[in-house]
Parts: sequence; C-alpha cells; structure tokens
Amino acid sequence: MDPVRLIRIKEDIRADNEAVATALRRRLAEQKTFLLNLMSAPGAGKTCTIMRTIEELRSRFRIGVIEADIESAVDAERLVARGVAAVQLNTGGFCHLDASMVTRGLEGLDGDTLDAVIIENVGNLVCPAEFDTGAIRNAMILSVPEGDDKPLKYPLMFTICDALLVNKIDYLELSDFDLAAMRERVLHLNPRIQIFEVSAKTGQGFAKWTEWLAREVAAFTGAA
Amino acid sequence: MDPVRLIRIKEDIRADNEAVATALRRRLAEQKTFLLNLMSAPGAGKTCTIMRTIEELRSRFRIGVIEADIESAVDAERLVARGVAAVQLNTGGFCHLDASMVTRGLEGLDGDTLDAVIIENVGNLVCPAEFDTGAIRNAMILSVPEGDDKPLKYPLMFTICDALLVNKIDYLELSDFDLAAMRERVLHLNPRIQIFEVSAKTGQGFAKWTEWLAREVAAFTGAA
Repeated sequence: MDPVRLIRIKEDIRADNEAVATALRRRLAEQKTFLLNLMSAPGAGKTCTIMRTIEELRSRFRIGVIEADIESAVDAERLVARGVAAVQLNTGGFCHLDASMVTRGLEGLDGDTLDAVIIENVGNLVCPAEFDTGAIRNAMILSVPEGDDKPLKYPLMFTICDALLVNKIDYLELSDFDLAAMRERVLHLNPRIQIFEVSAKTGQGFAKWTEWLAREVAAFTGAA
Repeated sequence: MDPVRLIRIKEDIRADNEAVATALRRRLAEQKTFLLNLMSAPGAGKTCTIMRTIEELRSRFRIGVIEADIESAVDAERLVARGVAAVQLNTGGFCHLDASMVTRGLEGLDGDTLDAVIIENVGNLVCPAEFDTGAIRNAMILSVPEGDDKPLKYPLMFTICDALLVNKIDYLELSDFDLAAMRERVLHLNPRIQIFEVSAKTGQGFAKWTEWLAREVAAFTGAA
C-alpha cells in the first residue's frame, strides 16, 4: 500500500466535496434554512440529544433531521414515531457523510420548508471531521463514559466544532472523568468552542445549549 | 464525488492489504507469536482491558502491545509506565490500521521474542472492520453506555470478530441496556462469536475472557 497515493485521492475527493458544500451553503442562505452537523462516537447520545433539542425548540422553529448510518433505519424510525420530520441515509459502508449525501437528504426532507435541519452524522470521531457537509455550524458530543483524554486522540474533531456537548454528565460520579482537564485540552485545540455540560436523558444543562442553538438559527434565518 | 470510483480504489487497497496480511500470518506462525486485534468505539475501555488482561496472563506468556491512534502516545505511555512492552503507531489521519502498519509495529516491538501481541486499533467501529491487520484473532469491546443497538448500526464489526467483550458491565444499573436483546442481535450476525460480560475496572467476569485468550495463545504457539 502506498500512503502517498491514498492521500492524493483523498485530496481530490475533498476538493470536489468542498465545491458541493459551498454550493449547498449558498442554497441554505437563499432558502433561510440553518443546518447543524452533529457528530460523536457511537453511543454518545446523538439521537437522544436531537429529540430533546427539538422538543425544547419545537414551538419556535420548524426542525427536521437527516439521520445517517452505515446500515439500519432505527434512528429515523425513533424520530418519526415522535412526530419529527426525518429521513434516513444509509452510507453503505462509508464512515462519514459528504455534502452530496446531505444535499440528497435535504431534498428528501423538503428542507426548504424548514427553519433548521440537524444532521446526525455516522458515529465516528475520525472520518466525519474530515468532510465538510455543507453545514452552517458543527457540533459534537463527548459522553462522560468515553473519558477525558479524547481531545488528545481525536484533535481534528474538537478543532472543527463550534459547540461541544459533554453528555451523560449524570455518569460523572461513577467515573474518573476530569472535567477541568478535558476543558483545558479542548480549549487548547479550539479556544472559540462553546462547551455545554448536559444530560440528554434528564435534561440537565440543556437550556444553555438550546439557547445557543436558537440564537444561531435566528441569526441565520431571521426566524424568531 | 463519484462513489463508484472511490469503491474501486478501496478494493485495490484492500487486495494489496490482503497479501501483506497473509504474509504476516505466515511469519507469525513460523515465529510462534499469537496476534490479537482489539477494536472498539472511542472510550470503550481498550487500554484498560489490555492492562488487566496482561496482568492476569503475565505469569504464563510474554505479551507486548501495539498501540494505534491518529495522534498522541498517551496509551503506550500508560502501558510502558506499568512495565509492558509497547510501541505507539500514529496513523496520521488514517481511521484504521492495515497489515503493513502492524508489520512495522511488530518490528519495533521485537515481536519474535513474544508469545502474544495485542493490537489496540484506532477507536472506531467502522473502518478497522474493513482492513485485515494480519491478526490471528479479532476481538471487540462494546461498552454498556454505548447502548444495545450497536450491532444494528455497525454489523460488519460484530460479524468479523471472534470475541466480544461487553465492558463497563458495572454501569448496567444506570442504563437501559438490554443484555438479552444485544446478545440476540450479535448472535444473529455471528453465531460463532464468544461473548464475555466484563468490567475492566473491577475485574468482574475477566477470568472467562482470559481463559479463552490463553487457550487461543497456547493452541497457536504451543506455549503453556
């Protein structure tokens, strides 16, 4: 295997993707739809976070969801059962979403009737960080059971995100997770990131996160 | 982006990798070194599991570790501090290990003096499942906080593994993780997989796992 060859191919694909992402962002600005790309490791609580976020913002904004997984439609099914507009993308083995896939997802969702769309990216701290989805903002979840050393191991993900939700904060007592050390590691990589300590299960800390998100949506779309 | 083009490239790389993996397995058989590839999502407890496994088997086998991460050497440093022979591979952005990287890792470790080497793969449930590392056995960790639906979402990983450690079993009471449902989903994908319920932190359930591993090492190497 020749790593130089692989890297060149990756760069070609990324350049193509950048063009599609830029076109998508232009379209989102025209139709006034905010797009959030939510990423995390498997099982950090993305779907649960999305459900609670929509419940708390439902009276103010029309929000849809693009679910992505290698296989299965379990997450979209959970959302649709709760009355949320959602489509499921199956990446068929790909470990990330790109801007073309998201463009197709938005079309499937009738995205132009919505104030905001949340993308639940593939559960993975590596590949999704490398591909611009066309989103207006990137957010990630780090769950307490994963450990406070993740910024050291997956620095790109923490660097490209606008917001970090530290989820399952209700597990803190059971674990040796060091909040101060985690914060220092994250802010060293990305001094502008907004950090929210939350529990998507209990709702703890959620108000600050949804306030931040509501401000971002309102600023982009002009919706109240 | 043209997905057909990408898939063809992937297949070329995989065919090259298969040849290197086969050569590595031949070499391992000659030098009588067992090689275990351990995979999981970020923060499922790979390093902690490796440390306890080595402590319990240290009197019977000489065991080394190949640590892999996108960046950082924190895991290898933790192991070396405990007196374990370990090397750190930095994949520099790659989301998986391949057989060439592992071959270089074994050389850095003086692998031919060891009865067994454990690879700690990149924390990721997608890409590592697609690349043969040359290992004799594949094992994975699913930690309880990640949820019982992971076999539905990352089926390839569960399909290619010989053993599954369900870790952080001490978190079971806090979570709605359904052990029976998880077992059914995993065994549907892979009826031959060995499932061990463990806590790498407390040692609960570890004896069955280390017994299984010791039998595999002994069968391959002839070491007691």
